[in-house]
Amino acid sequence: MPPRFTQVASALPSTVPFVGPETRERETGRPFKARLGANESVFGPSAEAIRAMERAARDAWMYGDPENHDIKTALAEFHGVRPENIVVGEGIDGLLGYLARLFIEPGDIAVTSDGAYPTFNYHVSGFGGALAKVPYDRDREDLPGLVAKARETGAKLVYLANPDNPMGTWIEGRVLAELLEELPDDAVLALDEAYVEFAPKGAAPPIDVERPNVIRFRTFSKAYGLAGARIGYAIGHADLVGAFDKVRNHFGVNRIAQAGALAALSDAAHLDMVVGSVDRAREEIVRIAGSHGLETIPSAANFVAIDCGRDGAFARRVLAGLVSGGIFVRMPLVAPQDRCVRIAAGTEADLERFAAEFGPALEAAASAD
Amino acid sequence: MPPRFTQVASALPSTVPFVGPETRERETGRPFKARLGANESVFGPSAEAIRAMERAARDAWMYGDPENHDIKTALAEFHGVRPENIVVGEGIDGLLGYLARLFIEPGDIAVTSDGAYPTFNYHVSGFGGALAKVPYDRDREDLPGLVAKARETGAKLVYLANPDNPMGTWIEGRVLAELLEELPDDAVLALDEAYVEFAPKGAAPPIDVERPNVIRFRTFSKAYGLAGARIGYAIGHADLVGAFDKVRNHFGVNRIAQAGALAALSDAAHLDMVVGSVDRAREEIVRIAGSHGLETIPSAANFVAIDCGRDGAFARRVLAGLVSGGIFVRMPLVAPQDRCVRIAAGTEADLERFAAEFGPALEAAASAD
Repeated sequence: MPPRFTQVASALPSTVPFVGPETRERETGRPFKARLGANESVFGPSAEAIRAMERAARDAWMYGDPENHDIKTALAEFHGVRPENIVVGEGIDGLLGYLARLFIEPGDIAVTSDGAYPTFNYHVSGFGGALAKVPYDRDREDLPGLVAKARETGAKLVYLANPDNPMGTWIEGRVLAELLEELPDDAVLALDEAYVEFAPKGAAPPIDVERPNVIRFRTFSKAYGLAGARIGYAIGHADLVGAFDKVRNHFGVNRIAQAGALAALSDAAHLDMVVGSVDRAREEIVRIAGSHGLETIPSAANFVAIDCGRDGAFARRVLAGLVSGGIFVRMPLVAPQDRCVRIAAGTEADLERFAAEFGPALEAAASAD
Repeated sequence: MPPRFTQVASALPSTVPFVGPETRERETGRPFKARLGANESVFGPSAEAIRAMERAARDAWMYGDPENHDIKTALAEFHGVRPENIVVGEGIDGLLGYLARLFIEPGDIAVTSDGAYPTFNYHVSGFGGALAKVPYDRDREDLPGLVAKARETGAKLVYLANPDNPMGTWIEGRVLAELLEELPDDAVLALDEAYVEFAPKGAAPPIDVERPNVIRFRTFSKAYGLAGARIGYAIGHADLVGAFDKVRNHFGVNRIAQAGALAALSDAAHLDMVVGSVDRAREEIVRIAGSHGLETIPSAANFVAIDCGRDGAFARRVLAGLVSGGIFVRMPLVAPQDRCVRIAAGTEADLERFAAEFGPALEAAASAD
């Protein structure tokens, strides 16, 4: 008799939420010329954060503090909440996994937008849950639709990214706050704010950690340029946040990431520089798209979705052309959003390389009709 | 109605497997004079690994390769197996969590030694499993007892650390291999070899990755001095190892750790230095114990358990005295092993500080009768 996996594990497919760019590079034997597919911050981490990580490398023989005390305390002060309202984890991905584990067992339902972040879906399915999906409404997450679906299905979790990924659209914080009033008390809203630093003021609702059924996810992976360090956090009611201590990998956040995040958080000038650079890069992507007569989706994130003007099959050919040309990009997976390709805010050099390949990719995609 | 946690999550206690030394330092306001409680390698990571991590810090804006390709390939070559036989994860702790998730659902049983690694127990309980515990046999894990208990209970998982933690005792690889023949085919042996680099040749059985029900755990946290980087791996049958891809946090192993581990693996000279230094430190701990008329448990790990010669209450007083004196150490939690305190292999300076506090701690413990 072979090993006895759980029923849930036996039924899981061997899929992966995302294939990394390195896999493609190994396949082709050529490094990408521009890395614009994972919404990373090409503008890098703060010099202070790099120095802090270099120092921490020498101390890597010591486990990191399992309470993540220093960074948690700094984050509490930064957000005007108590440390009990914050849990630090191995990126938002890791924290979404813990959230799913705390709430989802076979038969449970989670609501999300059809085409939103695949890793949330991966974790829900991974604990035997079912997904109830709501279509985007004109390239925005359909907030009333998500709430209605939660009521209809009795969902335990509702996922919303604001700003949205992969489209970059956003919802005003006050609109979000109003809709929250309609959310059933026993449904927990997982509000993924990975890109919130790039959004206009007002996109984030005020943080009310007394509300028992909202948990917000933030990260050092995007605006802070620390994707490879693996550190993110969630903010919420102390009872909800405290439950993570029952299941998390207590020593899971590495010591170097804790040091880097702490230094990054206090370097406001670097953050300003990144946000400004992203602004300019978004404008440049809009300009490049426009030079081909194409529209873009207004974005509050560090990427822009370019509407390739036709169907998903066409956009997939454009994407394939870009990737073959050495430009790592990704695209939405679900119609009609899959008419777009998604380009991360690159350096000027990155975007020149993208621009050089975009025209030929569009032409090749058109000629394949 | 409040958020609806799963039944398993609702029933979990808010306990933590280990309290970190930083928590104690914050309580007392004083840093420890010697950090000898978490079996970390005070001899540090390889200089090559430090340089690799420093370089990777600058690149931390990029996610790490989710396939962990480079380090996995190097490990496969190192162990003479195929990459499909290796899964890299966020330390052994993280990997044990995935193992429990793959196998344990409410009602399932895992077998372990009473007093062995608490984090394994944490993960089994965390997925609703029950633990069947086998007492140590003269300070060694009782291999025939573990196998018999697995048969008796129909356990899905059996945990064995070789060398053992917290006692440091070990089992010859050939004895282990013989006993494996008795293990039920449908029970998976989780063989935790975190300390195997410190053990005499022959402690590790030959690696047979064709066996479907053994998975071995190794780490960069101990002999390689990278506890704070959070990277470990498991070796086993491709079907068993491949199942981790269904549930793991694919981007969970940070980029800096991947770079550090790769450099550490190829610095055999540093590993030899560490193993030699640990040898000498173990001898020194034996000598210090002997100077107080105390026995030690023969150890194949980077720590030594000192038999304080009386009961658990006495050893706990000794431990409290050491901790108050600024020496971070831990001890076994279950009788009769809790007659010991466990001292990690420190530098000469560390062990001098330990020696200076040990006598007074023993005296204070005795005078408290």
